[in-house]
Amino acid sequence: MTIQLYDLCAADRERRFSPACWRTRMALEHKGLAYETVPVLFTEIASIADRQQRTLPVLVDGDEIKRDSFEIALYLEKNYGDKPSLFGGEGGMALSRFLHGWAGATLDAQIVRLVLCDIHAILDEADQSYFRDSREKRFGTSLEAVVNRSDEAVQAFRNSLLPLRLSLKGQNFLGGDAPLYGDYCVFGSFQWARMVSDFALLQEDDPVQLWFERCLDLFDGLGRKAKG
Amino acid sequence: MTIQLYDLCAADRERRFSPACWRTRMALEHKGLAYETVPVLFTEIASIADRQQRTLPVLVDGDEIKRDSFEIALYLEKNYGDKPSLFGGEGGMALSRFLHGWAGATLDAQIVRLVLCDIHAILDEADQSYFRDSREKRFGTSLEAVVNRSDEAVQAFRNSLLPLRLSLKGQNFLGGDAPLYGDYCVFGSFQWARMVSDFALLQEDDPVQLWFERCLDLFDGLGRKAKG
Repeated sequence: MTIQLYDLCAADRERRFSPACWRTRMALEHKGLAYETVPVLFTEIASIADRQQRTLPVLVDGDEIKRDSFEIALYLEKNYGDKPSLFGGEGGMALSRFLHGWAGATLDAQIVRLVLCDIHAILDEADQSYFRDSREKRFGTSLEAVVNRSDEAVQAFRNSLLPLRLSLKGQNFLGGDAPLYGDYCVFGSFQWARMVSDFALLQEDDPVQLWFERCLDLFDGLGRKAKG
Repeated sequence: MTIQLYDLCAADRERRFSPACWRTRMALEHKGLAYETVPVLFTEIASIADRQQRTLPVLVDGDEIKRDSFEIALYLEKNYGDKPSLFGGEGGMALSRFLHGWAGATLDAQIVRLVLCDIHAILDEADQSYFRDSREKRFGTSLEAVVNRSDEAVQAFRNSLLPLRLSLKGQNFLGGDAPLYGDYCVFGSFQWARMVSDFALLQEDDPVQLWFERCLDLFDGLGRKAKG
């Protein structure tokens, strides 16, 4: 049976924007596995698969139900060991946790302050209500008050990406000559912004933008062709 | 000939505090190589080795002179391939660049705002003058004005370490069950603070502090025994 990826969607179900789901999608492509995506609204998550799920992505592979993008990557690496490695060895597997954590905790936390209202704008009506309530509770203020696109805020965000720039000096991907799961962790964050917003996070000549463009070209331009 | 590590020192030449030099020192220990350290003041750097050096660490291994802690790690990995790996494979080598960049660009940049005056206080008189001039030029203000130990600043610093905490869930080191060069990159930053200051960067029960304690125990307690 084909692997199923439950993938967060907007009101337009072809629009897939979850950073974590993008990580998993790129990992499936990297492994060269056949899969299909199943679009899921925020308010539909509780009813998918075994009805025990609260977050996406969820991956169903035969009898296996896996959640959490990093756990899914570990599962794919272990169960499809004959396919290209997502980690490039044991050291790469361990260190990928840091990139995963940095992308989710540091990078996403900054990007959300640039695109939060744009996310809300593309959601289905029921999802909009859920999203506003849950996020305003989390941030302790309105969605509109969270967003800050001042020159200072944007510059601070760009400055914070220096570790990426240093890492990409002399290699095309964070994983070296070719991408690894660490690349997909960070790619997911930038693709999330790209799928929900026209706001330019990066300057065109930023080495991070050039790396992102290379990622968009991977797998026959999967990320670039995706409907935003 | 024994490998020589030119190692930044304070007025007390036994006090070694450079984060980058600590990375290299831990890498040498990890490889189990014989080496000696040569204490160097800031104002002595230009006169060491081939008199072409401007930063530390500098490693001299026979006819080879290597600088930049990451380049030194690559050199050690390549030339001492029969010794324990610093990277755990090609993926680990590539991804270590990100940890190196994050430690140097993000972590050190925050720690310096907590301990800058403490660094100045332990330096030799000529170094104090050099350090104040160069750092005040870099920051555009006095050393004293850079330091901010307000509750908010300290909490913001601690919050920013979430990627480390996430990474250390379920593994003792960033490199997995045992440390890799990625651990030494981050260790160097915290050891730098420890060698110059009594200020508690972390709470005792913080998983990052518990990891740091494990690192201090490595190599027969090298980091812990070091004179701060």
